[in-house]
Amino acid sequence: MANTMLAVVKAEAAPGAEIREVKIPAFGRTDVLVKVKVASICGTDLHIYEWDRWAQGRIHPPLGDEVTSVKEGDFVSAEMHVACGKCLQCRTGEAHICQNVKIIGVDADGAFAEYVVIPESNIWKLDPAIPQEYASILDPLGNAVHSVLAGEIAAKTVAITGCGPIGLFSIAVARAVGATTVFAIEVNEHRRKLATKMHADYVLDPSKEDVRAIVAERTGGLGVDVVLEMAGHPDAIRTAFDIVRRGGRISLLGLTSKPIPLNFSEDIIFKGLTIQGINGRRMYQTWYQMTALLKGGKLDLHPVITDRIPMKDFSKAMARLKTGEASKILVYPNGAR
Amino acid sequence: MANTMLAVVKAEAAPGAEIREVKIPAFGRTDVLVKVKVASICGTDLHIYEWDRWAQGRIHPPLGDEVTSVKEGDFVSAEMHVACGKCLQCRTGEAHICQNVKIIGVDADGAFAEYVVIPESNIWKLDPAIPQEYASILDPLGNAVHSVLAGEIAAKTVAITGCGPIGLFSIAVARAVGATTVFAIEVNEHRRKLATKMHADYVLDPSKEDVRAIVAERTGGLGVDVVLEMAGHPDAIRTAFDIVRRGGRISLLGLTSKPIPLNFSEDIIFKGLTIQGINGRRMYQTWYQMTALLKGGKLDLHPVITDRIPMKDFSKAMARLKTGEASKILVYPNGAR
Amino acid sequence: MANTMLAVVKAEAAPGAEIREVKIPAFGRTDVLVKVKVASICGTDLHIYEWDRWAQGRIHPPLGDEVTSVKEGDFVSAEMHVACGKCLQCRTGEAHICQNVKIIGVDADGAFAEYVVIPESNIWKLDPAIPQEYASILDPLGNAVHSVLAGEIAAKTVAITGCGPIGLFSIAVARAVGATTVFAIEVNEHRRKLATKMHADYVLDPSKEDVRAIVAERTGGLGVDVVLEMAGHPDAIRTAFDIVRRGGRISLLGLTSKPIPLNFSEDIIFKGLTIQGINGRRMYQTWYQMTALLKGGKLDLHPVITDRIPMKDFSKAMARLKTGEASKILVYPNGAR
Amino acid sequence: MANTMLAVVKAEAAPGAEIREVKIPAFGRTDVLVKVKVASICGTDLHIYEWDRWAQGRIHPPLGDEVTSVKEGDFVSAEMHVACGKCLQCRTGEAHICQNVKIIGVDADGAFAEYVVIPESNIWKLDPAIPQEYASILDPLGNAVHSVLAGEIAAKTVAITGCGPIGLFSIAVARAVGATTVFAIEVNEHRRKLATKMHADYVLDPSKEDVRAIVAERTGGLGVDVVLEMAGHPDAIRTAFDIVRRGGRISLLGLTSKPIPLNFSEDIIFKGLTIQGINGRRMYQTWYQMTALLKGGKLDLHPVITDRIPMKDFSKAMARLKTGEASKILVYPNGAR
Repeated sequence: MANTMLAVVKAEAAPGAEIREVKIPAFGRTDVLVKVKVASICGTDLHIYEWDRWAQGRIHPPLGDEVTSVKEGDFVSAEMHVACGKCLQCRTGEAHICQNVKIIGVDADGAFAEYVVIPESNIWKLDPAIPQEYASILDPLGNAVHSVLAGEIAAKTVAITGCGPIGLFSIAVARAVGATTVFAIEVNEHRRKLATKMHADYVLDPSKEDVRAIVAERTGGLGVDVVLEMAGHPDAIRTAFDIVRRGGRISLLGLTSKPIPLNFSEDIIFKGLTIQGINGRRMYQTWYQMTALLKGGKLDLHPVITDRIPMKDFSKAMARLKTGEASKILVYPNGAR
Repeated sequence: MANTMLAVVKAEAAPGAEIREVKIPAFGRTDVLVKVKVASICGTDLHIYEWDRWAQGRIHPPLGDEVTSVKEGDFVSAEMHVACGKCLQCRTGEAHICQNVKIIGVDADGAFAEYVVIPESNIWKLDPAIPQEYASILDPLGNAVHSVLAGEIAAKTVAITGCGPIGLFSIAVARAVGATTVFAIEVNEHRRKLATKMHADYVLDPSKEDVRAIVAERTGGLGVDVVLEMAGHPDAIRTAFDIVRRGGRISLLGLTSKPIPLNFSEDIIFKGLTIQGINGRRMYQTWYQMTALLKGGKLDLHPVITDRIPMKDFSKAMARLKTGEASKILVYPNGAR
Repeated sequence: MANTMLAVVKAEAAPGAEIREVKIPAFGRTDVLVKVKVASICGTDLHIYEWDRWAQGRIHPPLGDEVTSVKEGDFVSAEMHVACGKCLQCRTGEAHICQNVKIIGVDADGAFAEYVVIPESNIWKLDPAIPQEYASILDPLGNAVHSVLAGEIAAKTVAITGCGPIGLFSIAVARAVGATTVFAIEVNEHRRKLATKMHADYVLDPSKEDVRAIVAERTGGLGVDVVLEMAGHPDAIRTAFDIVRRGGRISLLGLTSKPIPLNFSEDIIFKGLTIQGINGRRMYQTWYQMTALLKGGKLDLHPVITDRIPMKDFSKAMARLKTGEASKILVYPNGAR
Repeated sequence: MANTMLAVVKAEAAPGAEIREVKIPAFGRTDVLVKVKVASICGTDLHIYEWDRWAQGRIHPPLGDEVTSVKEGDFVSAEMHVACGKCLQCRTGEAHICQNVKIIGVDADGAFAEYVVIPESNIWKLDPAIPQEYASILDPLGNAVHSVLAGEIAAKTVAITGCGPIGLFSIAVARAVGATTVFAIEVNEHRRKLATKMHADYVLDPSKEDVRAIVAERTGGLGVDVVLEMAGHPDAIRTAFDIVRRGGRISLLGLTSKPIPLNFSEDIIFKGLTIQGINGRRMYQTWYQMTALLKGGKLDLHPVITDRIPMKDFSKAMARLKTGEASKILVYPNGAR
């Protein structure tokens, strides 16, 4: 093996990133050095690339170079949230909200590189029956699986507000586990087209359609049983509370950037709602569920993967994302797919 | 309306039944007189027809003639377990195990007649989108829905021991709500063929195949997450405990006729199992779930309906059931379908 | 029986109320005419008395006079929310959030009268072992039981924000079902004294003490497992989100009068919270739970009952409530207790 | 530190055990060498001592000598089931039913020695507020906490069949978390006396009293909501199914030595029961719950501790256990308590 590799490097605390030749990282005793066949770009990556306020507070480039190697040839993916294993949450089955979580790609070198180091505990071995491309999107797919299965869903009506990649994945997951009607609500036209390709029953544009009235009509006046809020926008959150039925569930995943006013009495208490914050993926229940659904052929996720690029075109991918035309972009650090 | 109708009558406490002209029943203040377009035959009906020991203890023919009429033209089905509404179970959402339940067709005149009386509370109005034939099989379908959804099922492996009509329905329901692998286990060849038509992933004959070894192999040595026991036979129950994984669920629906030995330590405690008795249908959660799945087009139940007969051929239907070749038989009391 | 009785009458759409001699109400076929030995005053009653904006929109005095009689001598209480029994919520065990609920005392004549009419379905027969005074406070006690038992509570740390009568009851209930530490948070000095009498472990004044720091210190830096929000005040709600631990539960009961800003990302999503709206009492699970706790002698509620008045002093009771010195006031319509 | 210590040694595959001077065990990288202040004797220890059939199949003396040392002075207890951390059960919050569990004291050297080696992951640090004696009984207390909290318990009626130490602990735990009536059912007179000291509401002798009739009478004819079966005897199991109410829960902990016949239809299905196998303690949810209850002063367990002996009298302790007069026996390997 060579001593160096190519990687997308955030060399400075400023917008942008560059491809550099760097040392293949050294590895700790319980780490695995993974050769990256394909990685996918997350919304968070764009924040880091753009170097916005959140990124400035959280990221401290350049990161260290502690990495590792492992048994050759295994086909793997990884949970990128590394839990401490020692806090109350970790010891009671809630490691996804660990008090001391580290995120690979945020707090440590990420996967836009020929090699990445992952602690053995976070490696997820994959069945060869699972398509290789899917191995690079398991973290966001896991967000969707976690959200959909955070409460009862079989034989329920579901609305998804916000159709970024996780919202689109959620359409597929909800359908696979027996949701009977799926409403996809999204202002962006490209995303609405993808929602249609994912077989949402109704795809609605809240900037032009009366979502509340349409949902009421299609649900016998009740509203939906479940809302998966994946936009993080005040209008989408308002819609979520407007269309959920009495006794329904709202699972919140979309991150907001500022406080949003909520009328607790009318919006939550009189309706007897349950509201959940969804963070990461259950370790490792979500991974078992996700893998089982993929192996069983229950999920067709191909429409969400809109772009496939070699790593050297990383900056072009970021530009594509900003246009709103791309959804999930796969990055190939080791050349040809 | 005429004063009389044809009905299958259990006139004597003896085997058999006959078609007679009887008075259309009178109706109480909160009852609905339903014109029966189609009814379906249950295993219990065969017990009553055969007049076995259970039937002798439970049924007291001839039954009375209290009946009712309601708004004409509504398309309805009915929950045939009439709960008292006053016991602890009824008042805490567990009416399916009401202490004082009466069963229409067992404790009161049933639906093998041109008209049947149903309390208004038990009438279930149907969406015209639901196929008419399905209206006559909602009670056994509800047993299946209740069993499948009595615990987590999405992304789980499931085994169904016993493929009578409820077992066959359960294959469809389990698949519709995201079970990833369905094993159907059944000794009867006709039933195994139907299980294949219902798209079970593996259809096994326990009289010839090593079910335990096959399930172990197909589940990575784990065993299945969920067993739905629908045979009531000692061998099937033995299989259920043998193939369920540690921490799994066994939902018991198949009625047994005698005590069966169980090794509590090995079969339940060390494995940390959850075992549930499943009785009837949740009133009316199961009905909402079932209707939603049917309306959403998630269930194709047609293979289970093997015979359609006019009511006058009721005795022939009973003979067909005894051969083991028929599964669900629809009976048409009001002539042509 | 006489034809007339005394009752507190809201004769006009204006502040106040008066004691009048009115006809004893007639009763429907499924109603029960209850002789009122003792009733208790709710915060809602004060709203109606004061004739505030909410009351103006909701109440339509004078109300009708439909009432009933029943087997003499039974010792009863009643669920004052009358559910329709026909909506999805009612038919799936969620009658406490019925779409068509009517509230006795708001939508129909209430219990500040010598007699009140209650539908038979809402009558709750009481064991003579239960203290008579408690029969008049079961609705607010039920709110407390519903809130406390809306999620896991045994061996948990709990904070109660707002110590009106329901908050005070919640202290007793939480302790009875195994909460290990109870924080009572309240600005009113009289209420804090009562919280101490109810044996809260820590009674905190948020206007003077650093609640967040104290809770953190007493919970090993974690925050509390459960918050029961019973104030409806923006500051209390802010405190609730500040002191709940990652993965914790907030059950909201206190009604708010205007929108409150919430930072969804920090307050809910990253913490993986579960938030519930609590309305009324589960019919009738809460009633069974409440009765069992009372019969078992697990709840001493006497400190909450601060005043006992004959019905003729109703206006004085309202004045007492407004001073903030009284908590639960019992009203005796039929003279001497 | 000396090189040797005293320990109870099972030197041969035969009945009995002896106190020997042995080397203080060496320790692995992630192990903790614990100085044993006090240990307690479990029913399993008696099986091993007596060298019965189960012990002959499971135990392979003498065991190895792998041990460790850790920061001096910490006050600790330990979970004695060592889970593998890698199987499906371990990775989905079910480590208590790990496929590859090792039990310290069965599969490795136990705590009847001056020192014992425990993997760091299984060490449980204790708050000094917890009585020292309790540190030696946390494993069986955890069995009780796990059983009681394996389903709803607040405001429920509970029966405990079998009042060995875990059954007795369960009385205290059930009361602490809001069970309203506790029936203790036990044939042994000494144990019944202890059940009374633990404040069970009713203590019944099934060899002389009609348990079924008494439970029915005291529960308004319903039966109990929850049975904790801790005897493992066929008669006790029969009683459990006889006295549980429709829709109730039976949690099974008592190990049986042979198959027991069960009438699935009558005993489970028609009643709509939930039956659970309880094994070990939830890692580490049970430990948090148990610690919180102890710290909160909710549990008085002293009556269960009947004997305190120096380690040299180990054989006498075994004799005491066989008489049935002793309940929990504490063993002091390091001399004076």
